Amino acid sequence: MKAIPYKIYLSENEMPRYWYNMKAVMKELPDPILNPATMKPCTQEELNQLFCTELVKQEFNTTDEYIEIPKGILDFYKMYRPSPLVRAYCLEKELDTPAEIYYKFEGSNTSGSHKLNSAAAQVYYAKEQGITSLTTETGAGQWGTALSMACAYYNIDLTVYMVKISAEQKPYRKAVMETYGAKVIPSPSNTTEAGRKILAENPNTSGSLGCAISEAIEVAMKTKNCRYVLGSVLDHVLLHQSIIGQETKIACEKYDIRPDIIIGCVGGGSNFGGLIAPFIGEKIQGKSNVRIIGVEPASCPSLTRGKYAYDFGDTGRTTPLLKMYTLGSGFIPSPNHAGGLRYHGMSPIISKLYHDGYIEACAVEQTKVFEAATLFARREGILPAPESAHAIKVAIDEALKCKETGEKKTIIFGLTGTGYFDLAAYISYNEGTMTDYIPTDEDLEKGFATIPKV
Amino acid sequence: MKAIPYKIYLSENEMPRYWYNMKAVMKELPDPILNPATMKPCTQEELNQLFCTELVKQEFNTTDEYIEIPKGILDFYKMYRPSPLVRAYCLEKELDTPAEIYYKFEGSNTSGSHKLNSAAAQVYYAKEQGITSLTTETGAGQWGTALSMACAYYNIDLTVYMVKISAEQKPYRKAVMETYGAKVIPSPSNTTEAGRKILAENPNTSGSLGCAISEAIEVAMKTKNCRYVLGSVLDHVLLHQSIIGQETKIACEKYDIRPDIIIGCVGGGSNFGGLIAPFIGEKIQGKSNVRIIGVEPASCPSLTRGKYAYDFGDTGRTTPLLKMYTLGSGFIPSPNHAGGLRYHGMSPIISKLYHDGYIEACAVEQTKVFEAATLFARREGILPAPESAHAIKVAIDEALKCKETGEKKTIIFGLTGTGYFDLAAYISYNEGTMTDYIPTDEDLEKGFATIPKV
Repeated sequence: MKAIPYKIYLSENEMPRYWYNMKAVMKELPDPILNPATMKPCTQEELNQLFCTELVKQEFNTTDEYIEIPKGILDFYKMYRPSPLVRAYCLEKELDTPAEIYYKFEGSNTSGSHKLNSAAAQVYYAKEQGITSLTTETGAGQWGTALSMACAYYNIDLTVYMVKISAEQKPYRKAVMETYGAKVIPSPSNTTEAGRKILAENPNTSGSLGCAISEAIEVAMKTKNCRYVLGSVLDHVLLHQSIIGQETKIACEKYDIRPDIIIGCVGGGSNFGGLIAPFIGEKIQGKSNVRIIGVEPASCPSLTRGKYAYDFGDTGRTTPLLKMYTLGSGFIPSPNHAGGLRYHGMSPIISKLYHDGYIEACAVEQTKVFEAATLFARREGILPAPESAHAIKVAIDEALKCKETGEKKTIIFGLTGTGYFDLAAYISYNEGTMTDYIPTDEDLEKGFATIPKV
Repeated sequence: MKAIPYKIYLSENEMPRYWYNMKAVMKELPDPILNPATMKPCTQEELNQLFCTELVKQEFNTTDEYIEIPKGILDFYKMYRPSPLVRAYCLEKELDTPAEIYYKFEGSNTSGSHKLNSAAAQVYYAKEQGITSLTTETGAGQWGTALSMACAYYNIDLTVYMVKISAEQKPYRKAVMETYGAKVIPSPSNTTEAGRKILAENPNTSGSLGCAISEAIEVAMKTKNCRYVLGSVLDHVLLHQSIIGQETKIACEKYDIRPDIIIGCVGGGSNFGGLIAPFIGEKIQGKSNVRIIGVEPASCPSLTRGKYAYDFGDTGRTTPLLKMYTLGSGFIPSPNHAGGLRYHGMSPIISKLYHDGYIEACAVEQTKVFEAATLFARREGILPAPESAHAIKVAIDEALKCKETGEKKTIIFGLTGTGYFDLAAYISYNEGTMTDYIPTDEDLEKGFATIPKV
């Protein structure tokens, strides 16, 4: 066996040329997307009004296990990929564990996270289709930043509706997007009917992701050659994110690394779905026994405490209905610093895999997450995003179990991004003022009451 | 010739095992460091009181061209190195230039810059010597962050005196250092005599780098098993930074890349000195004709408009005297967003090489720098630090000259770090409120008047 370096970088000619489509091997498919007006499955034609045609085609593709990545996207990927698969030698030593720990690090690009993998693809297909402008929403700002970078590269106009409170609290996130040429509008705004309506009802609102989605969709529907793009949850987003898993798998095969456990954080599910994609393929096909664990915040526990039901994707109840684990679109997550994991629902593919027993889930509290994040930063030198640190926490727990049992397991986790824009959270942890929030059963019932009857 | 990938990563066994010591090949050496009390050259014994013994030995080493990097430091380097040498294909296309442009990117670590290369080495040697705590000062915060990371790794206590106004304006920088376990004290403070004296005279002062240096030195001198460490200017810092140039040179040789021009930004001179080290060695030995250009801000033009003279390293006039290009330790740089380049002096090695005609220098205005930074970000996907963008600006200028002449030159520049903590500057540029500041001759004369008569 070759000696394993600290950081495994694939060379350009080792880079994957295909995304991995989990649906092609799933024994049962996720339930179809429904049109809430008719309660019938959405057709591709219906979705083409809102999304780029090729992305809708990918959303409906249940047959091709491997989907070729166009050269125009591979060229973009070359700018910031491959991402390294890192052997956490220093963390292992600190934990004094027989386990071998690896992490796939997606934070080495200016957007600071994995989001760029799908942004690149979505903007490329828009350009190919002759689309001249795109709209989206952003909360914490990682998706908006990634999309701004991709739109600058492919020369497409972008309007980002940014939740007003985020735009005010994170002026630097806004500044990055503007440096990349995006138009950033705090939401609600008076640029849309949806925004004006909300402002008339509540002039002092600090905005919400639901409202920002409604505004972005409205503009996309009303503007010529314009489409709306989404950064997580949907099948085609997971498809693009499978570049993470594809690279990881090639690196594992090159160095004969055989993972026993794969761990990722889950919010909408896109990084997790991307990391596990080719591994779940092998598991479904009976070729591997790998344990796969999704980690969510205890404050927003859609997999571990949610219901598997049809629900809206947004709090504004304007999107098609998705069958997924959900806390209800009206669920209000208590404050948690991992903004990217504060989502009431979950990718339909991840939901189905979880429902069918292929993956496990667990929920962790944020003070424990920051404890793990700080240890990781000091040992491995990377300041992790709070979202990513959920996976770190569980990887450490599993490694410590190995220490007790003496088992030499191989653990891989996804390190989705960096925490440069999350330092207010670190300050709160360092000062000892961070607290944990776990919704009561009553809190959950209020959310469940907003799930539509189908 | 092998096809050149977008990003060249050396494998672990290709990584350099030696630093490059320019002084071993320089035809004339820089003038010695003087003790301001005696005006005689400082002895190693004198400097050992303040700095770690091995670092002082390196400071005085004028004979060994290659100095072996200890395994303990190589292990640390493996955590975040090699850094990539990137072919700027997208920037070349945008400029429509026949030139080939490469950049060595040092920003892919949590400290966000090259500073970690010397921090790792200095803390390692402190640990070896049995030192249990270190002190330093930080202004913009990159050095303090890098040192905090290294101290966490090697388990050494660290106290950082951070210029008070910086600590207030950049609470997130402070938070990163604290997350890595450092004690960060806004300077001036009441923890030192120097600080108390300044506070008594001027209770509302916002602090200065000079004062922070004085406090850090005082604590180091008075504390058992404690030393002071410095992040730029001195010869041993440039030595450690030569890892940048060593990697670059190995990558160039592997792919038969022959640079015609090498460009770096210069503040104290450490990243620039590190990048050019092995290349200047060849130039001095008559083996190459490469042009080497240091780029400084027009607002703080030590090389292009300073005097070559003995001067103090700090505004507090407490350090030994260094022979260097200087604007005078009393020179007050007008505001400029590249905080890392706002230094009145310059590395004695770089000063000597410039004085002897081996390198060129030029000064650029910050609005032009941010114009280049924005173009670079949009094409190459990396948000550069304002400091690094000085090199980008001149690389673009040289590439455009090639477009005019049709010459296919090979240009390499140093991209020292990322701009995540500099977004206030980008906002000012995006909003059109950024202005340029060029000191008048009268401004310079005021600074020159503070240069001691030797």
